This record gives sequence, structure tokens and C-alpha cells, in this order.
Amino acid sequence: MAEPPSVLVAGASGFAGALAARLVDRHPHFRLAAITSRSDAGTPLNALYPHHRVARELELLDLDGAHGEVDAAIVAYPHGASAPVVAALLARGVKVVDLSADFRLRDLAVYEEYYVEHQHPELLGDAVYGLPELYRDAIRASSLVAGPGCYPTAAILTLAPLARAGLIDDVVIDAKSGVSGAGRAATAKTHFVSVDENVTPYGVGTHRHAPEIDQELAALGADVPVTFTPHLLPLDQGELVSCYVTSAAEPGDVVALYEEAYAGEPFVDVVDGPPGVRDVRETNICAINVQIDPRTGKVLAFGAIDNLWKGTSSQAVQSLNLMFGRPEAEGIA
Amino acid sequence: MAEPPSVLVAGASGFAGALAARLVDRHPHFRLAAITSRSDAGTPLNALYPHHRVARELELLDLDGAHGEVDAAIVAYPHGASAPVVAALLARGVKVVDLSADFRLRDLAVYEEYYVEHQHPELLGDAVYGLPELYRDAIRASSLVAGPGCYPTAAILTLAPLARAGLIDDVVIDAKSGVSGAGRAATAKTHFVSVDENVTPYGVGTHRHAPEIDQELAALGADVPVTFTPHLLPLDQGELVSCYVTSAAEPGDVVALYEEAYAGEPFVDVVDGPPGVRDVRETNICAINVQIDPRTGKVLAFGAIDNLWKGTSSQAVQSLNLMFGRPEAEGIA
Amino acid sequence: MAEPPSVLVAGASGFAGALAARLVDRHPHFRLAAITSRSDAGTPLNALYPHHRVARELELLDLDGAHGEVDAAIVAYPHGASAPVVAALLARGVKVVDLSADFRLRDLAVYEEYYVEHQHPELLGDAVYGLPELYRDAIRASSLVAGPGCYPTAAILTLAPLARAGLIDDVVIDAKSGVSGAGRAATAKTHFVSVDENVTPYGVGTHRHAPEIDQELAALGADVPVTFTPHLLPLDQGELVSCYVTSAAEPGDVVALYEEAYAGEPFVDVVDGPPGVRDVRETNICAINVQIDPRTGKVLAFGAIDNLWKGTSSQAVQSLNLMFGRPEAEGIA
Amino acid sequence: MAEPPSVLVAGASGFAGALAARLVDRHPHFRLAAITSRSDAGTPLNALYPHHRVARELELLDLDGAHGEVDAAIVAYPHGASAPVVAALLARGVKVVDLSADFRLRDLAVYEEYYVEHQHPELLGDAVYGLPELYRDAIRASSLVAGPGCYPTAAILTLAPLARAGLIDDVVIDAKSGVSGAGRAATAKTHFVSVDENVTPYGVGTHRHAPEIDQELAALGADVPVTFTPHLLPLDQGELVSCYVTSAAEPGDVVALYEEAYAGEPFVDVVDGPPGVRDVRETNICAINVQIDPRTGKVLAFGAIDNLWKGTSSQAVQSLNLMFGRPEAEGIA
Repeated sequence: MAEPPSVLVAGASGFAGALAARLVDRHPHFRLAAITSRSDAGTPLNALYPHHRVARELELLDLDGAHGEVDAAIVAYPHGASAPVVAALLARGVKVVDLSADFRLRDLAVYEEYYVEHQHPELLGDAVYGLPELYRDAIRASSLVAGPGCYPTAAILTLAPLARAGLIDDVVIDAKSGVSGAGRAATAKTHFVSVDENVTPYGVGTHRHAPEIDQELAALGADVPVTFTPHLLPLDQGELVSCYVTSAAEPGDVVALYEEAYAGEPFVDVVDGPPGVRDVRETNICAINVQIDPRTGKVLAFGAIDNLWKGTSSQAVQSLNLMFGRPEAEGIA
Repeated sequence: MAEPPSVLVAGASGFAGALAARLVDRHPHFRLAAITSRSDAGTPLNALYPHHRVARELELLDLDGAHGEVDAAIVAYPHGASAPVVAALLARGVKVVDLSADFRLRDLAVYEEYYVEHQHPELLGDAVYGLPELYRDAIRASSLVAGPGCYPTAAILTLAPLARAGLIDDVVIDAKSGVSGAGRAATAKTHFVSVDENVTPYGVGTHRHAPEIDQELAALGADVPVTFTPHLLPLDQGELVSCYVTSAAEPGDVVALYEEAYAGEPFVDVVDGPPGVRDVRETNICAINVQIDPRTGKVLAFGAIDNLWKGTSSQAVQSLNLMFGRPEAEGIA
Repeated sequence: MAEPPSVLVAGASGFAGALAARLVDRHPHFRLAAITSRSDAGTPLNALYPHHRVARELELLDLDGAHGEVDAAIVAYPHGASAPVVAALLARGVKVVDLSADFRLRDLAVYEEYYVEHQHPELLGDAVYGLPELYRDAIRASSLVAGPGCYPTAAILTLAPLARAGLIDDVVIDAKSGVSGAGRAATAKTHFVSVDENVTPYGVGTHRHAPEIDQELAALGADVPVTFTPHLLPLDQGELVSCYVTSAAEPGDVVALYEEAYAGEPFVDVVDGPPGVRDVRETNICAINVQIDPRTGKVLAFGAIDNLWKGTSSQAVQSLNLMFGRPEAEGIA
Repeated sequence: MAEPPSVLVAGASGFAGALAARLVDRHPHFRLAAITSRSDAGTPLNALYPHHRVARELELLDLDGAHGEVDAAIVAYPHGASAPVVAALLARGVKVVDLSADFRLRDLAVYEEYYVEHQHPELLGDAVYGLPELYRDAIRASSLVAGPGCYPTAAILTLAPLARAGLIDDVVIDAKSGVSGAGRAATAKTHFVSVDENVTPYGVGTHRHAPEIDQELAALGADVPVTFTPHLLPLDQGELVSCYVTSAAEPGDVVALYEEAYAGEPFVDVVDGPPGVRDVRETNICAINVQIDPRTGKVLAFGAIDNLWKGTSSQAVQSLNLMFGRPEAEGIA
């Protein structure tokens, strides 16, 4: 019997990387080769995230050593810092799922407008956008998968059937997220007393996930910029997008459109009523409800995910499964 | 020196009535004459809401006795049950602020479509919609004030300057509320475990506050039905409306429009960035931020209130102050 | 290859039963035969608990039909209602883990003082208290396992090494629990607004878990009634017991005592600092920290569990594994 | 008519100082002269704490200028940093309520063991411990009041009647606090995701409030060190102490003892059942319940306060009222 593929998780001290490490560690097929961290090397992951129960110590990344010899890597670095690591891994023949924004945007100019100067623009053409429901075959054949942003994951899945059908004239996306989406850094905004008993819009008109959603909706045929406003909620994990679509869709048709679009999808549930994020907590599911506002005719589409699971880390494993020819749901069902 | 006006609070065992009782009890000018409850007569209010510190016992309503001889009443009954009590109070010469929906909608047919058969339609013409920022003079002269719904309070204040200026072509209102807005009844939806770590849309396309918002926007000149979707959040008090307006407004003008509209208003703050509901917790303030989405040109207007204070009970006292010629902010600043 | 044992979960519409159904449904060895409910028959479990992802419909219990032919059952009925169902299952040769209190107390008089008249006292002698760390061998040989209460699970594990060593002269247990411990019923006490931003002692001096803790500590040699006070906290899952022990223990010895006591236990972690309940969320782990108060010499022992997992349902599966000769951690690691 | 006394709040950018500024600003008798901050000078307080609605700008402290000419000051500096400011204010004839720990402990050696080297030990003899229920007359006559710690406020009030009656043989205090007690600093421990859905003991055996409680219980006649363990809870404001007292008290007597002890106290409520912290939220009240455990005979005494109000800032105003001969409840009832 062949050796199980070995997987490195780089940047495993953050929320996303730590969960990726747990999922790989318990995966029936992959072997967690190592976990690394720039800030917490020497610390056992269990000291930071006891509930993940990964009995491994965080190491400093050493690509010239053993870390460069793995079969695959999930890279959970901040944007800008990720590209060089990804490039080095690819050069060593390692298959990569990158959780940063560095390879999500196909247009270099847009990336550099919203983020920083790109260190490896030559790799942009090789990257596949890691939303299996849209790019399953390309992911299977790819060595570099760009894990989508959490909001884009929910928004694109929630709007794709309409976009593909040419039924989006205009769209407002009011998004709501738990605090884990803001990362592990302790700031005034993530202080418990700031968030508790509160709800606040943020990144209004400027959030970096807006051009990412635009890119994918355009690829599906809906070339209209989205009005996208995220809000911070007092909960840890969970993300809801409430999408308000000006559309020529007929009331009787939209539910059938969604049911057909997602008929065979293992991780998209088209549900009868508006989902809550609790419904998909700690799952790789995106639950979607679509209906027509009887007063205004707008299409209302609601999508709920767990931002750390389907929005980031379990979706990365979903791509990894595809890249290694495994059953898509293995280890994340 | 004249006697202070005596005020009855009917339905004081609910969240809104109890807070109204507290505000009247501590008001420098009014005297809390009695508090009544259909379900909890005989119980001290302190046993239900210790932090309000109202050392009074709830009584059964007796309009033929002392309760009919008060100068004013705040009625916090459910819709349908309120109209007969209000009618009886008015017949005894009592000035009334009604917190139910019974006198909010000027069009009887709309009321009966969304609520129940109206028991006192003959009073609809006498009622003034109790949003002081819109109807200050009428409230001063009225004996029957219909306290606005919590969502309409936030939504109308947040959209009024645009509506008045003819700058609303279309509007989506994504509203978020804490659980106190759902009232004191223990149900599956208000169970802690249902709400905690969750966010859920509800009343999609059917919520009763939509026609109320329509009515007032139309009165201001914006005769367009709103797309209105409320969401339940894991917090107790606080309500945010995120309004997405398709508009011919010029970027440079909207902030000035709002600042001018609310220049003299004691309880509306036009603020620089998107407000959180914590900013207005336990105040009679509506905090509003307006901006233009640089990507889509939509006007984004955010309004935050405390649903039990400005959204209900302190706003009722604001009206009561006006009805009795008192300083508008007395007892609620 | 032999058929996998079939398992019935009776009372699967409550929090504990629903989680038991999920754990059995995903268990690599057992087969979920049916799930039943007195109140929600006809409803898919996914409609009540979508995140558990159990695609089964709740049925009415029919012990004379297929439900009586299963190999094992987890019964999640309220106390009093459970005993007759358990008796009927045992009569049909079904192995049972009962999650009610009906078979926890070996002394009939104590049971009837704290609960109700017992319908099947003749079975008390057959029941094994389902704490594998104390009764592993007896559970293996038993057909009737009484799943411990959630507080007793945490308290007994946290105090057992001291009790066994004769080192408890007196003990105060201050316990804290999330709301799921109060069950699914919507009441004034479980209303979000009652629990949020609150912490309240309850069941002071009268809680039914006190005699259960006493029984097991006495069995270990510590025949002293515990002072036990639970508190309700604003969180869903998680339970912490803070135990204050007057003891002759020597400072240098207690940590070693605990490490030795739990050296081989797969589901008890003796940890360096006081655990938080988040550390064990959605795990079958009890995390225990023990230390000596340097000011007073008291032994301080803290134990954290997830009340629905180790405190109830995953611990039931742990027993089921033992009863069927499976690896103890199968399906719950 | 005489000028109202002018009050400086130094350190007004923290949670405690900001609330003190609000309470003084709205006080009917005092005049808020200035608010200062070392970190946020130049910022309006409304930008940090909009709900307090204090339309003042934070300034750098200038004791040689106008800030040295006020009638009174509330100093909300960290321990160690406070003493020099207090000394300078006293030298200028300013009456001071200090919210730090610098003047709480009468024994210099104990202070220096638990905190730092004391810069002004010569002032220790002048300081009065600012718990009005114990030291009302001394506070009236004092120029330097040391505001008690939040836990000591709750613990001492909850235990004082027993201590005074010689009825404490031993006592365990299990304390629970919201996150505002940890202050405004953003750290790993105050990150929302660390606190949410969690409860954790901290400062076990070493918390600085233990010797403070000891000091005051000893002064009342109970010379026994307390076993004191605080826990961090997922809420912002509120503190509960659960006290377990080994005592010779007779069951029939303890309630009467407490009712008598606090008969005339405006801010201590002896209540029938265990209080929740929500009962006293945003009040200056300490709610206390006392009972005997029927199983073990221990005295159980529960005390609930709002840690920022009675535990810190409103209690400071209570002292200020006494120091200026005002009604004790003025501005904080």
C-alpha cells in the first residue's frame, strides 16, 4: 500500500491554520507532516487550541529541510507574506492550497489596488480559484489552489445560479460575520467589550472581498459590481450573506433554478426557509434559501456558512481531496 | 404649584411597559400613578425587573376606578388588545401614547391586511404618528399618539432626509435586532440556545413593519415600497438598519443633507462612521451615518437605536413631554 | 463479516438525544436503527438540529415492532418516564444506556426523595453507573448503564483521586453550566434576555445532582456530603466545577496523585493551569487542574467538560463501546 | 448660591474613569471640570464611549495649571502610577477618591508584596477605605478615599454581617466577573473568541483582591484568610460572589442578621433568592441573598454587583457625596 500523502500546514497558529491542522491530522488519508508558525514556534498547538486536540509542536518553517519535502501544503499566511512561501513550495514540487488573498484575483492591477505589490505575479496564471462547486475539474488538475475568502465563498455560492442564468441586474450583499473572521490579533475591535451586545458595519465600500466577488460573478456572466457591506456580530464562528437582487427572475422559477444548480453538490444545501449560521456550525456546508419578496419582486437569497470551515479550512481540505483524487467529502463530512 | 400630571402605564409586565414605568417613575415632572398587567397583577415590578428599581406592584386594570382618572397613559398592550383600552381612556379625557400597532397605520385596509380587524377605526383619524422628529407640532396638540414600531423608528429617521429630497429611487433595508424586540414570551425562537452563536433572517417579505415604513416614506415624498428584511442577533437590546439606496444623490451632498436635516434635533446624531448599537445603548438617540459606496454609487445609510428606548419606551416619554408642554428631553437625556 | 449492532435512540428530539443520534449515526461500528420522539414524531431531525446532519425522521416509539428488535438503545427520556421504557427494552434483550436519573441512585429512598416514585426499583441492582473511568469492567459486563448526570461527571472525575486517597475532609463544589444543560424547553429561565449578560445561582441546597455526587464519593471512600451550588451562565455548552477541598494533602503530592490516577485514561487530561470549558468544547474530554491555595492550604481542583458530550451523550457512546467490546474511543475521539 | 464643587476625573479613557466622568457630568450638584488621559489626550470621550454622552475632550493632566485648582478628583490610574498623582492633588488641597489599589491596603508590607514599591507610604495613614457601608463617617471627614476593588466590594458586603457577629470559621469565595473588570487593554485574554462560550478560573491563589478582603474581614472581627478564586465570564459588566461559610450560625438567624445589618442602607438589598448580576446592572446596588445549605449546614451568601458601578465608579461618587455633605444617593440612584 502506498504511503499517505504528507501535508504541511504553514501558519498553523492562527484560527484558520490551526483548524486546517486539525482536519488534516484526523483525515483518514493524509498525514500531517508538520505545523509551523512564525510567532509561536516551540509551542504545542494544544496549548493554543486545546479543543482541536492536535498533539504537535509548532515549528519554524524550514523549506530547505523536511518541510520542503512534503507532498502538499496548506499555507495560512497573511496576504503578501504568502506568495514567496507558495512560490518556494511549488518550486519543490509541493501541491499548495493557499489561504491568503495572494492568488485569488486574476487581475494583477486589482490585487495591487486592494492589497500590496505582488511578489510572484508570474504564478497568477497557474492558480485555480478554490471553490470546488465552480472549478472542480480545474482544482483536480492544479498544483496551486487559491482558497476563496470567507465572504466570497458564501456570496458566490448564494448568487451563482442567478449569475449564470443572467438574472442579476443589480445586487446588494449585506454580510454578517462572527469575530473569528477578524483573526487572532487582539485589537480594540476584537476586545470582548467592543463586540459583545453590539453589531457594527465595517469596511464600508472598501472591503477587499468585493472585487473578489465581482470577479467570480463576472466569470459566471453577471458583470455588475456588488454593493457589499460586512457587519461584525457578537459570535465566534458563522457568516451569513443576505443578498438583495434586482432581477427579471420569475417567482415560480428561482427555487427550481437553485435546486437544479446544486442537485449533486455534497456541500450545498438548498433549504426551505432562511438559514441561521448555527445550522451549519462546524460543517463544510453552505445552506442557501432563495425567495421572491412579495412586495417588491426582488430576489432574496440567503447563504450561511461557518467562516472557518466552509469559508476557509474545511474547504481547503475539500480542494486537497480533489487534488489527490480522493473522495471529495473525505475527512470533512 | 400645580400637581404633576399622573401617568398610568398599562401592560407594564412586558419589556416595553416595564421600561416606560421606570422612565415615568424617575421623571422629574410626571408622577407614576399606577402600573397594570393582565398576567402578573399582584407581583411587584421589582420581582420581574429588579434593575428597573420601580417599587410598585402591578395591578389589574380598572378604568372605572382610579386608573380612569389619570392625566395620561402609556399603553403597552399587544395589537388588537390595545384599541379598546385606548378608546376607553380617551373617553375619560386621558391623553394616550399607545405602543401597539393599532393606531400607526392610517389606512384601515392595510392595518387589517397585516394585523386583525380593527375595533376602533373611528379613532384612526385622531392619532398622530409618534415620531417627534417628523410630527413634533402635531404630537403637541394630540391626545392620541401612536408610538412607532422599533424598526420604523430607525428606518424612517435614517431615510427621511433622502425621502424628503426626492432622492430615493429604490431602497433595501437590512435590519438587525436584539432579542428583546421579540418580547418576553418564552418560545423556541427566544430560547438562549436558539439565538446564541446565531444570526437568522425572519419575517422575510411579510414583516408588519414594512407597510409602516412605506407609509411614512410616502408621506415624505418617496412612494416606493421598501425591501425590508429583519434579522435576529444574539444580543438583548439594540437595533441597526443598514439601508441601501439607489439614488441620484451626489456624493458631496448627502452628508450635508443629513447634517442640515438633523441640525437642531436633540436625539438624532449624524456621525462620521458607521454606528454600532452599543453606541446608543440605553439612550434615546438615533445615530446615523451616511455615505456613498465608491464602487457602485449607492447611498449607504446606517441607523442605530436601542429598540426598547428610542425604539419604544423613551420615545413614548419624548412624546409625553411634548403633549404636556415639557422640555422634550426631560427625563430621557 | 458480522452485521454492525443496531442502535435505537429514544427521545432524540431533546439536546442529549439528538447528539447521541448524531454520534451513533457517524460511528464506524454501530448502525443507527431509528430515532424516536414523543413530541416531534414525523419531523426530520435535520429540521430541529440541522448542524447534526442526521438525515432521519423521528418516529413514535414502537417497542412491539422494529424498535424492540435492536441490539442496543440510548434512552433520553425525562426521569420517571424513562424507567418503563428501559424495563421494556431490557425484557426484549436490548442493551441500554439510560440518560435519565432513573437508575443512577442505588438507594431507592434517596431517589424517591429527590425525584418521583420509582416504577422499576427491581432493576436498580442491575444498573451500572456509567462513568467508565470508575466502572469500566462493570460497564463491559452490563446490560443497563445509567449515564451519570453532567455535573456529577465533572465533579466525580475532578474529586476521585482525592476521595480514593482519603484526602477529602470537606468539599465545596461551585459549578457553572451553559444553558443547554437546562434542556430544550422554552421557559422564562431559558429566554435569551434572562440569561444574556447574567450569571445566577440556582437549585441552591436542593439540586438533584448533590446526592448523586455524594453516592460516588462515598463509594470511593469519602463519606462527606458535598456543598454543591450550580450557576447558570450565558453560553450554550460547557460546564466547569470549581472544587474547594479541605484536605490533609501535601502540596507536593496532589499533582502527582492526579497524574498517576489518570495516567492511562483516554478522556481525562490533567492540565497545568485552570481549564476553560472552551478547551473541551465538543469533545469527550474532562480537563482537570489541581493545585494548593498558597494562602489557605485548601486543595483547589477544577474540572471542565462539555455537558452535552462527556457530560451526557458522547459518554453514553463511550459506555456503548465498552458494552460491545469496541475500542473505547471509537467514534468519539 | 455657592458654586458647585468642580471635579476632575484623571484617567478617564479607561472603563472606570469614563463611567466616573459620565456620572459626575450628569450629577445635579458637582461640575465636571476636566477629564484627562495619558494615552488619548485630544480625543473626545464620545469617540471612545459614545453611550456615555460626555461631550468633553480628554486632556493631558496639568496639575500646575487648572487641574490643580479643582475641588475634588477621581483618579483612575493603574496602581503605582496613581500614588504620585494623588499626593500632588492632596498637596493642592484637592479631595481625592482614588480608584487604584495604592491606598487600599493599610499594611505597607502587604501592598509591596502584592503590588510594587509604594511611592507615598506616608499617606497610607490618611486614607479611608471607601466602602460607605462600613466607613461612612470616616469618609465624610476624609480627604483621601481609597475606592475598594470590585471583588472586595461584593465580598465584604456579602460577608460583613457574619464577620461582625463572629460567625465565620472558614470561607470560600468563588467569584465570577464580566470582562470589563479586566480593563480596556486588548490582550489574548480579552479577545472575544477567547471569552465567548467560555468560563475560566484565573489568578488562582494569587489574586490581589484576596489580602484586601482579608484586611476588611479582620477589621470586622473575622481573622481568617479567605480562599478566593475569580472566574472570567462571557459578559461585559457584572460580578457575583458565591460565599461558602463554615459557621456556627443558626439557620433561623442568618436572614434576620442580614436584614438588620442592612436595614437602613440605600444601596444594599437583602433579597429572597439568589441574585443574578442582571438584577443590578448599571446600578449602585449590591444585592445579597443568604441561606443555609440544608444538607451541610454551611452558610451560603451570594452577592451581586455591577463591577463598574457599585464595584468602582458609582461607589466613588457615593463617597464623593459623603465628602461634600451631599445626600448619599445623589446622582447615582
